Amino acid sequence: MTIDITISEVGPRDGLQSIKHIMPTAAKKAWIKAQFEAGTSEIEVGSFVPPRILPQMADSAEVVAFATTLEGLDVAVLVPNLRGLENAVAAGAHKVSIPFSMSESHSIKNVRKTHPEMLVEIARCVAYLDTLPNGQRPKFEVGLSTAFGCTIEGKVPEDLVISMAEKVVEIGADEVGLSDTTGYGNPAQLRRLVNGTWDACGKDKLTGVHLHNTRGQGLANALMAVELGITTIDSSLGGIGGCPWAPGASGNIVTEDLVFLLEAMGLNTGIDLDKLIAVRELVQKALPDEEMYGFIPGAGLPKGFYT
Amino acid sequence: MTIDITISEVGPRDGLQSIKHIMPTAAKKAWIKAQFEAGTSEIEVGSFVPPRILPQMADSAEVVAFATTLEGLDVAVLVPNLRGLENAVAAGAHKVSIPFSMSESHSIKNVRKTHPEMLVEIARCVAYLDTLPNGQRPKFEVGLSTAFGCTIEGKVPEDLVISMAEKVVEIGADEVGLSDTTGYGNPAQLRRLVNGTWDACGKDKLTGVHLHNTRGQGLANALMAVELGITTIDSSLGGIGGCPWAPGASGNIVTEDLVFLLEAMGLNTGIDLDKLIAVRELVQKALPDEEMYGFIPGAGLPKGFYT
Repeated sequence: MTIDITISEVGPRDGLQSIKHIMPTAAKKAWIKAQFEAGTSEIEVGSFVPPRILPQMADSAEVVAFATTLEGLDVAVLVPNLRGLENAVAAGAHKVSIPFSMSESHSIKNVRKTHPEMLVEIARCVAYLDTLPNGQRPKFEVGLSTAFGCTIEGKVPEDLVISMAEKVVEIGADEVGLSDTTGYGNPAQLRRLVNGTWDACGKDKLTGVHLHNTRGQGLANALMAVELGITTIDSSLGGIGGCPWAPGASGNIVTEDLVFLLEAMGLNTGIDLDKLIAVRELVQKALPDEEMYGFIPGAGLPKGFYT
Repeated sequence: MTIDITISEVGPRDGLQSIKHIMPTAAKKAWIKAQFEAGTSEIEVGSFVPPRILPQMADSAEVVAFATTLEGLDVAVLVPNLRGLENAVAAGAHKVSIPFSMSESHSIKNVRKTHPEMLVEIARCVAYLDTLPNGQRPKFEVGLSTAFGCTIEGKVPEDLVISMAEKVVEIGADEVGLSDTTGYGNPAQLRRLVNGTWDACGKDKLTGVHLHNTRGQGLANALMAVELGITTIDSSLGGIGGCPWAPGASGNIVTEDLVFLLEAMGLNTGIDLDKLIAVRELVQKALPDEEMYGFIPGAGLPKGFYT
C-alpha cells in the first residue's frame, strides 16, 4: 500500500539532543531498528556537530552506518555547516538538513552567522555536493527554522521567509522545509507560508514541515499541512525532549498521536500503532528518567479501530 | 468587533459534574462572572438532573438565575428529559441541550431509553416548548452524543447519525449538535458528519460541535470544524474534568488552547487570553485538588502576539 504521509521520526536526533542523559549507541540502534520495523520509513538518526557542543550526538557516524543497513529506511541527519555535511556524506546519510534561522538575531546567536553568511555556507554546501558522484549525493534540504516566529525577535515576516526559500532554492538546495522551532505557529499562518513558498519555488521544493507542540497546536498545524498537500511531517516518539514549555525543551509533536490522527483519517503512514507503542516502551526503559508525552498510549485506540 | 467563533464554556457543567469535589455555589458564580468578563459569550452553567444522581449540579436553578443577570451572556444548560427542560425553563435558561446518544446501547445504559423512546421524549419536549410564550422559549438543541463512536459499540454508523439528525429536526428541535463524547473522532469523519448533516437538515440546523481531547485530537478536530464553517465550539477551562484517559473523565478541549488557536488564526472569539488565564487561577484556587490542563498557561503567548 502506498504511503500517503511520510512521518519522519526525529526523536533520535531532536529528542535526544534536548535531554541531558546520553543514550548509549546500542540503545539508539535498538530504537531505530524497532521503529523501522514498526513501519517508519524515515528517521533522523543524528547530527554532525562537534561532540564538545552536543556529546549526545558524538556517535552519529556509527549510528548512520548502522541505520543504512536497514533496507528501505531513509536515513536523515542534521548538519550545521559544510564540515558537518562532509562528515554526513562520509557516513552515508541519505538526506541531510541544514537549519537556516529566519530570525537573523537567532541565527547569529545560534551559529554566529548573518543571513548573507548562511547563504554563502549553503552555496558552499551545494558546490561540494555537486562534486559527488550521483550515488553518493544525499538529498539536501534547508530547514527554515523560526519560520513561524522567534523568542528573540517575536514575529518573523512571512515575505522574508518566502524570499529566503526562493534564494535557497536558486542556490541549488533540493528542498526547503518549514520549521516551527518555537511553537508559535498557527494553521492560517502555515497555509500562507506553504502557499507562498509553493508560488515562489514550485510545489516540489517544499514537501515537509517540522512542527512543535509547545502551545498544544502541533496536530492542528499538522492537519492543515496535510490538507494543503504536504507529504512529510516530522515528529518525535513520546515527544521526547522534555516538557514542552521548559527552557530548552523541544516540544516536538508526539509521533504516536500524529500517526493516530492520520491513520484515523484514512491516510496510510505505513506505521503499525501497536508496534509503535511497543517501541515507546523500549525507549522508556532506555531513558527511565525522561518523561514521555502523548495521549494515545494512555487512552488506547478506539474500540473497533482496526476493524 | 463581530465574534467569528463562539466558544461555549462548558466547565461549570461538563467539567464540574465529572469531578468529585462539589464547588460551592458562590464559587460557581464567581467563575461564571469572571469568565463572562473575560469575554466569553456563552456558558453552560448547569444541568437539571436529579440531585441524587449529580449532587454537583443541585444548585443549577440558582446558578442559572444568577447567570441571566449578566447582560449579554447566553446561559446554556443540559437536561436529560422533559422534566429537566421544565425546570430549566422555570429557571430562565436561554439555551437547553438534551443529549441523545447515537449508540443505542449507550443510550439504554445511560438514560434507560431506546432510540424510539428518546425520539418520543424529544417530541414531548418540543410540544411543551410550543406551549410557551415567545419570550420564555429557550433555544432547544439536541446533542447527538457518541456521534463519533462509542466505548460499548465501537463504530457508530455515520448514516445513522445523519438520519437521527434529520428526524430530530423534523420533530422540531431548533438545532442538533455533534458530540464526540468518547474522544474517538477524527477530522475526516467530522467533515463527513457535518457535510452529511448539512445536506440532510440545512446548514442552520447544525452550527456547533462538542469535541473531546481524550486522544489529543481536540484542536485538530476543532480546526476542521472551523474550516468547514461551524461557528460554535464547546470547551472547558483548564480541561477541567480530570485526566483525559482516566475512567469517567471528560477530556474536554482546553478553552485556553482553543482561544489561542482561533485568535492566532485571526478569528475573533471576543475573549481576552490574559483575562482568561486569570480566571483559570481563580478556579484553581476554588478547586485546589483538581489538576488543570492546557499548554498556553504554561508556555505563555508568543512574543509580540498582541502587537
